[in-house]
Amino acid sequence: MLKGKARAHTNIALIKYWGKEDEQLIIPNNSSLSLTLDAFYTETEIYFDEALTADIFYLDGQLQDEKATQKVSRFIDLFRQQANCSLFAKIQSTNHVPTAAGLASSASGLAALAAACNQALQLNLSKQDLSRFARKGSGSACRSIYGGFVEWQKGTDDQSSYAISVDSQHFEDDLAMIFIVLNDQQKEISSREGMKRTVETSSFYPTWLTEAQKDLVAIKEAIHQKDFIRLGEITEANGLKMHATTLAAVPPFTYWSDQSLKAMQVIRKIRKDGRPCYFTMDAGPNVKVLCQKEQVSQIKERLAEHFAPEQLIVAYAGKGIELIEMDV
Amino acid sequence: MLKGKARAHTNIALIKYWGKEDEQLIIPNNSSLSLTLDAFYTETEIYFDEALTADIFYLDGQLQDEKATQKVSRFIDLFRQQANCSLFAKIQSTNHVPTAAGLASSASGLAALAAACNQALQLNLSKQDLSRFARKGSGSACRSIYGGFVEWQKGTDDQSSYAISVDSQHFEDDLAMIFIVLNDQQKEISSREGMKRTVETSSFYPTWLTEAQKDLVAIKEAIHQKDFIRLGEITEANGLKMHATTLAAVPPFTYWSDQSLKAMQVIRKIRKDGRPCYFTMDAGPNVKVLCQKEQVSQIKERLAEHFAPEQLIVAYAGKGIELIEMDV
Repeated sequence: MLKGKARAHTNIALIKYWGKEDEQLIIPNNSSLSLTLDAFYTETEIYFDEALTADIFYLDGQLQDEKATQKVSRFIDLFRQQANCSLFAKIQSTNHVPTAAGLASSASGLAALAAACNQALQLNLSKQDLSRFARKGSGSACRSIYGGFVEWQKGTDDQSSYAISVDSQHFEDDLAMIFIVLNDQQKEISSREGMKRTVETSSFYPTWLTEAQKDLVAIKEAIHQKDFIRLGEITEANGLKMHATTLAAVPPFTYWSDQSLKAMQVIRKIRKDGRPCYFTMDAGPNVKVLCQKEQVSQIKERLAEHFAPEQLIVAYAGKGIELIEMDV
Repeated sequence: MLKGKARAHTNIALIKYWGKEDEQLIIPNNSSLSLTLDAFYTETEIYFDEALTADIFYLDGQLQDEKATQKVSRFIDLFRQQANCSLFAKIQSTNHVPTAAGLASSASGLAALAAACNQALQLNLSKQDLSRFARKGSGSACRSIYGGFVEWQKGTDDQSSYAISVDSQHFEDDLAMIFIVLNDQQKEISSREGMKRTVETSSFYPTWLTEAQKDLVAIKEAIHQKDFIRLGEITEANGLKMHATTLAAVPPFTYWSDQSLKAMQVIRKIRKDGRPCYFTMDAGPNVKVLCQKEQVSQIKERLAEHFAPEQLIVAYAGKGIELIEMDV
């Protein structure tokens, strides 16, 4: 029996991935840059077994339906093809999130599954190739292969679109991210749907692409110089530009809720009061606060004046994929 | 003694004026289109008198300080020059707003003052010229010269930048606007400052200009066809695009508060439930809801589930400037 088990952490983009050039292969329109975080991760084990007559997929101990299983099967097919393997598999995946806040991310899930497949089928894929494979499962998963700062180089085709680790002289160890959990409901517009509509209809989208490229160059310079203020300013500005593109989509939409705006106001206020911190948001109402590790407790205290303790989750820089020893 | 008295109503732009080509003459970068409203107006009387040794300015019964008076004096100078008059003036201006909600607008104020000066100095200016003069006091004031739908044609210089009435076959009589008053505090960033920063630094601004021109053509077509749904869709989309430009300014900013977002969500929900209504916002947190007159009470009732009665003010299409008989 072929088996593998791996752990992958989620990542939050500081320069956002927003829009696909190729919907099938998940080649993005712009390069992005993220920080891998320790607080949210997925552990996945996979068994390829002759005795199985179909793929079976358990998520958090629950047997998944046909639709969810098919999605996973199609992803595993990439590895089966590579290994010339026709066995079915049993997959057991567990999302580790501090609360049941709906923060489980497809990034850690698909990255962990990719690493587990690689091990089970003894493919010995390089991290670069693992990143390419993970990308085809969920775009941002390609960044969760690495720890710390990670750049997803958009590339031009399947071979050239993958993530690499950004040399940061351990700058990420000085940083923290506080998640403000505002909503665990199902999103009205998925990120896939939202970016598609934006690419196809937003008049601001072409400018976004130019800006994202500029921001990427600038943020790598800030990382190189370990300049937290610049890092934060670029992160916040880039996220706002991404969200601005949705307001010009046809029809327009936003991922922001009233509580997201409240959080932005509070963060601006804390910053004005002398504590550097910057927000970023993805395709949902939650707000993530980038700050320095040494200021986490003071900033969290200020946030706690407006949000309940269970809404605030602190994360630090996390590692890339890890293989896990399995019991026999 | 030369005297004049006039009333002017405020107007709300459906296609926003956002950015100046000429800061001194107030020539805009894009043409705009507004609806003049009945609920908010200014009445202003002016006396030019040999006995006066300086301009004196009363606003809502209060004698104004040097700074406010100077601003008004400089505006009146335009008329004094035109009339070859060197007399000082006493100005009494009253803002009529349903509540003390800080909704007094410079648009109605400067339009009323322009019309009062025109009468007092017997200049017999055409509406077009009055609009040009009002523009130099406060850009959007040039639109308050007319009732109903009004287009401010940007033009290229002082002579060619003025507003005109839009022929609408009385479509405006079917419409209403519900103001959701969210904040009467002084704005952090004035509209003048906000548009300047956006013009100078927002990478999305050039696209805004292209979009505003397209939206203007489309909304005039919707008015011509008395198509309320199109009118609303274009209004809401144009306002969102204007606000999106501020998110890409350096540094980024927004006029939205958490309550603005709440209002947008509620309006989208009312619309989803089958009652057509659309929002627009200016350089502040208040939200204005465009709807059909026949639906006002039902929509107001839905809004009242989320906002206090005194926060909701209903306005209908208003008239252009009117001269008022003065007591001797």
